[in-house]
Amino acid sequence: MPLVRIELFPGRSHEQKMEIAEAVTRALEQSAGIAPSATTIMFSEVAPSDWVVAGKPLGTPKSAGG
Amino acid sequence: MPLVRIELFPGRSHEQKMEIAEAVTRALEQSAGIAPSATTIMFSEVAPSDWVVAGKPLGTPKSAGG
Amino acid sequence: MPLVRIELFPGRSHEQKMEIAEAVTRALEQSAGIAPSATTIMFSEVAPSDWVVAGKPLGTPKSAGG
Amino acid sequence: MPLVRIELFPGRSHEQKMEIAEAVTRALEQSAGIAPSATTIMFSEVAPSDWVVAGKPLGTPKSAGG
Amino acid sequence: MPLVRIELFPGRSHEQKMEIAEAVTRALEQSAGIAPSATTIMFSEVAPSDWVVAGKPLGTPKSAGG
Amino acid sequence: MPLVRIELFPGRSHEQKMEIAEAVTRALEQSAGIAPSATTIMFSEVAPSDWVVAGKPLGTPKSAGG
Repeated sequence: MPLVRIELFPGRSHEQKMEIAEAVTRALEQSAGIAPSATTIMFSEVAPSDWVVAGKPLGTPKSAGG
Repeated sequence: MPLVRIELFPGRSHEQKMEIAEAVTRALEQSAGIAPSATTIMFSEVAPSDWVVAGKPLGTPKSAGG
Repeated sequence: MPLVRIELFPGRSHEQKMEIAEAVTRALEQSAGIAPSATTIMFSEVAPSDWVVAGKPLGTPKSAGG
Repeated sequence: MPLVRIELFPGRSHEQKMEIAEAVTRALEQSAGIAPSATTIMFSEVAPSDWVVAGKPLGTPKSAGG
Repeated sequence: MPLVRIELFPGRSHEQKMEIAEAVTRALEQSAGIAPSATTIMFSEVAPSDWVVAGKPLGTPKSAGG
Repeated sequence: MPLVRIELFPGRSHEQKMEIAEAVTRALEQSAGIAPSATTIMFSEVAPSDWVVAGKPLGTPKSAGG
């Protein structure tokens, strides 16, 4: 505890995700006194074409089918 | 808000997902007066072989291993 | 399958949620030919004070503490 | 996008959660160039008694029943 | 890893949940050789009135409103 | 109901997942009297490089980029 799940678009490098993870872990420590060893973070990717706001996708699929 | 997460089998085209998304967005507007711009929908796919009911998978894996 | 998870603010009546559920179930049937019996919908509520966009909560807690 | 879901023990004040949210939003901006307006964060609480590691709960229920 | 999330109806005692958690932890060990210390289980409760199959809720709300 | 979501590292065979699913289904029946037909289990895989504890990933990406 805590468990942090971060869903974002594909395309971030592993290095960027790890920078995010370190920054989030530090943020939880500094804001709430949570020991880094207690923080678990999971990344998962959601394609812009599968993310829909106001009925419109945030992107088109890579290989658009019909 | 609201956030709608739809998990379904692979195989729907982007067009079908967008029809679903539009219909769900409209349903939320008509049933509960929620502005379309407030509705976010995320699709993710779960293979039938990873979906188990009563201890039995809903399908076999594409490339069954052993 | 499919599994639909709807997270929304508290305050909708059971009747409104059921209208939403029926409309979503119908939408999946009409858009993608999914039999109503295959659609499971789960509602959960997230308080506006626990829902943060751009670093700002969408509401204040009912009983704001300090 | 991105969507960040933070599950933690009950007991944090609204102020603490908002500090966490601001810090996480800033971390995503600084590490990955994500505009704050694109970051949504949702908090939910899980009681230590419902969080089990190695078969042991992380706490006992407030009103232990039998 | 692994992370197991169990959503069920309210009404199970803490003892029953812990029996479930122990049995699931053992099952992962025996079936897949996963060390118990690596298994995290989280319980959350969903009211039958918020769980809808084929457009019908699995129960009525405790205090039905209108 | 119940719905069980199991997130684990890639690399388990379909057979291993099904052994896990059967064991979990039996565990729910024996510990809590839940009929097997009521138990749904969903598997999803999370790469060790996307699973971060204490700011460190549990593995490196298969094809590490820079």
